[in-house]
Amino acid sequence: MNIPQSNFPRVVIIGGGFAGIALAKQLRGEELQVVLIDKHNYHNFQPLMYQVSTGGLEPDSIAYPLRKVLHRYNNFFFRLAHVETVDPEKQCIHTNIGKLDFDYLVVATGSCTNFFGNTNLEKHAMSMKTIPEALQIRSLILENFEQAVLTNDLQKRNALMRFVIVGGGPTGVELAGALAEIKKGILPKDYPDLDIRKVEIELIQSGDRILPGMSEKASSKAEEFLEDLGVRIWKNTRVTDYDGHTVKTKTDLEFEAATLIWAAGVQGACIQGLDAENLMMRGNRLAVNKYNQLEGYDSIFAIGDIACMASDSCPRGHAMMAQPAMQQGKHLGKNLRLLLRNKPMKPFQYKDKGVMATIGRNKAVVDLKNFKLQGIIAWYVWMFIHLYFLIGFRNRAIVFINWVYNYIRFDREARVIIRPYQKDYSEFR
Amino acid sequence: MNIPQSNFPRVVIIGGGFAGIALAKQLRGEELQVVLIDKHNYHNFQPLMYQVSTGGLEPDSIAYPLRKVLHRYNNFFFRLAHVETVDPEKQCIHTNIGKLDFDYLVVATGSCTNFFGNTNLEKHAMSMKTIPEALQIRSLILENFEQAVLTNDLQKRNALMRFVIVGGGPTGVELAGALAEIKKGILPKDYPDLDIRKVEIELIQSGDRILPGMSEKASSKAEEFLEDLGVRIWKNTRVTDYDGHTVKTKTDLEFEAATLIWAAGVQGACIQGLDAENLMMRGNRLAVNKYNQLEGYDSIFAIGDIACMASDSCPRGHAMMAQPAMQQGKHLGKNLRLLLRNKPMKPFQYKDKGVMATIGRNKAVVDLKNFKLQGIIAWYVWMFIHLYFLIGFRNRAIVFINWVYNYIRFDREARVIIRPYQKDYSEFR
Repeated sequence: MNIPQSNFPRVVIIGGGFAGIALAKQLRGEELQVVLIDKHNYHNFQPLMYQVSTGGLEPDSIAYPLRKVLHRYNNFFFRLAHVETVDPEKQCIHTNIGKLDFDYLVVATGSCTNFFGNTNLEKHAMSMKTIPEALQIRSLILENFEQAVLTNDLQKRNALMRFVIVGGGPTGVELAGALAEIKKGILPKDYPDLDIRKVEIELIQSGDRILPGMSEKASSKAEEFLEDLGVRIWKNTRVTDYDGHTVKTKTDLEFEAATLIWAAGVQGACIQGLDAENLMMRGNRLAVNKYNQLEGYDSIFAIGDIACMASDSCPRGHAMMAQPAMQQGKHLGKNLRLLLRNKPMKPFQYKDKGVMATIGRNKAVVDLKNFKLQGIIAWYVWMFIHLYFLIGFRNRAIVFINWVYNYIRFDREARVIIRPYQKDYSEFR
Repeated sequence: MNIPQSNFPRVVIIGGGFAGIALAKQLRGEELQVVLIDKHNYHNFQPLMYQVSTGGLEPDSIAYPLRKVLHRYNNFFFRLAHVETVDPEKQCIHTNIGKLDFDYLVVATGSCTNFFGNTNLEKHAMSMKTIPEALQIRSLILENFEQAVLTNDLQKRNALMRFVIVGGGPTGVELAGALAEIKKGILPKDYPDLDIRKVEIELIQSGDRILPGMSEKASSKAEEFLEDLGVRIWKNTRVTDYDGHTVKTKTDLEFEAATLIWAAGVQGACIQGLDAENLMMRGNRLAVNKYNQLEGYDSIFAIGDIACMASDSCPRGHAMMAQPAMQQGKHLGKNLRLLLRNKPMKPFQYKDKGVMATIGRNKAVVDLKNFKLQGIIAWYVWMFIHLYFLIGFRNRAIVFINWVYNYIRFDREARVIIRPYQKDYSEFR
């Protein structure tokens, strides 16, 4: 891997997401050699990915070059690589570009989509965990309408214009809201030959309310907002099958739809070598103690979505979101600095800064620690917080310009199919 | 293709580039049915593509949704399709989404890369005629450096950091300049473990000066600017072969390079059915008369790069550039309106508005009709003109923000590998 030998201990961080970057920033200037490994050369601001999927933002504006994060950090190395296995006993990792020894290893690999073993869903549903996936959803949405203008069979046309979103968490809710805005503002002008009232957005949730991670008030307000926008919400409903055409559920409810977006489950993105049963928790996450250490390995840590720090107050670990990831990354950085100075590490304590979701134009729900907001002020809070946490001045400026333009013009101009998704449309002709 | 019958004559335009859009705009409000067909759903602002390749701009900011161009135009239809053949006798076209009859056909298919039959070059060289191709170049440039940090074999490392650009026209010159700026401003910070002085940009031109379509003064100034930036210019040199590793020329000059960008030739993007020998000119272009009509077909026209309007003053037709395309599109629109009113058409006359190329920060060459400029004022003129012709307020704003940011910060933040190019690096390890 061609990393020079150093007199300082080597920390290898796998993953440049929220957790990995927060950690790296804490280690600047320490007597350490830091190697950051990621399979992409950019940090990806996942909370805005649904806007890439729906033509509101360009992918580059939510991506930030990882090498730029490490500018002017001495003894920091970035490598673009896939980690294949970890050997915790020999303290080394094996990647597609070679082997690397470590003194400390931090696993910050995040999460990936969980289809719960349903291979049909895995094959035909769209997921949205990476930027290429978000772009595929964008292409598919647009291609569906291009296909819909070609048929006069109304049933097929309606199936092309039906979007089934599975999962009522923030991702599903935000996607449904964005699609509803497109239906209102853009489609009637872009497709004057289609009856756009027939576009249906179906949001399917297995539990009895959407946004189950938020307050009851937020859930009910979000439902109200979505229904005002024409989204149909199906609660207590589980999707069991999808063949690219028909969505089946546990009951006799079925949908004919060219699009199913799966936002109903994530799991830890585990690495071979650390996937032994004693290390893993529910949802493929690595069990860690309150110092983010793996059971039995003093020098191996996990932070962010992949880490499950179970406690009495939080038996399934923290939510797989940006906030716990950033806080764990920062905290582990401080702990490693203590470790270097032979001081005892401090236990991690999560500071809940709140949860929020946007539904559409002027509509969001925000649960902060001390107060809850819904509506237009929540929407401004949502935008401000997202701009604030987005990395890089240019990205902020570009996102801001896009938002202002989209708001004033009721528009989303990134509705371009750069690389087609090429769905098999034979059943929709 | 599901286009409704209409009482008005049907004009089919193939291609939504500069020519096709300029034509469509002229036909608004006429007693015509207009069908615009393109294989992409966006108009692509080709003059800024090299900035996408070099991480200065996001692809979406130079793409504009074609359906949006046609908003509020009555009796206009857009279809996303590949035209397979034209049947000029039966007055119909065959596409991947079905057949369509026409009363008037306008071929505005533009141009594609010409490798002059060299299959090795076609296989291993990068071309830059579409946005996906521009993104592939961006990925390859970045992947080369990620590969270069992995080897200590200096010869291999230098080959990974050598960029051979073939063709000294505006595309080649602008790409070489942009790469030289990246070498200066970004690479030393992104890759502190590489000796960036070893990055070589080789610009190869078959003729005895670069920018042969411009004045002698512009050529010599552009050469001076490029050489100041460290670009090596090889004149009177022809590339004959490239296997992905070694670039061969007509002489014994050779380069070891992981990247060869081919900007040395374009040809008309002809369609089957119109490729009969009597219709074609040198460079695969369709011969047209001064009304842009095809020889022998009163109702078939060609405009833009694909059209070759040879005359005594211009025996090989107009340059394959945006200006002649826009002017021909607009002029043909006016002629079709005359035709509808049974009035005689007017011959096309090209108004040469000048040619320009940018070389790098504060450096451009501009040949206008009455005066010629080089240097910083030319650079401002170049930027102003390009922003002016870019379609869409949002695109202009985003490009402007990027330029200001890149200028102030000596930066280009779109250096992200969204979809890897995945070159075979086995000879570079």
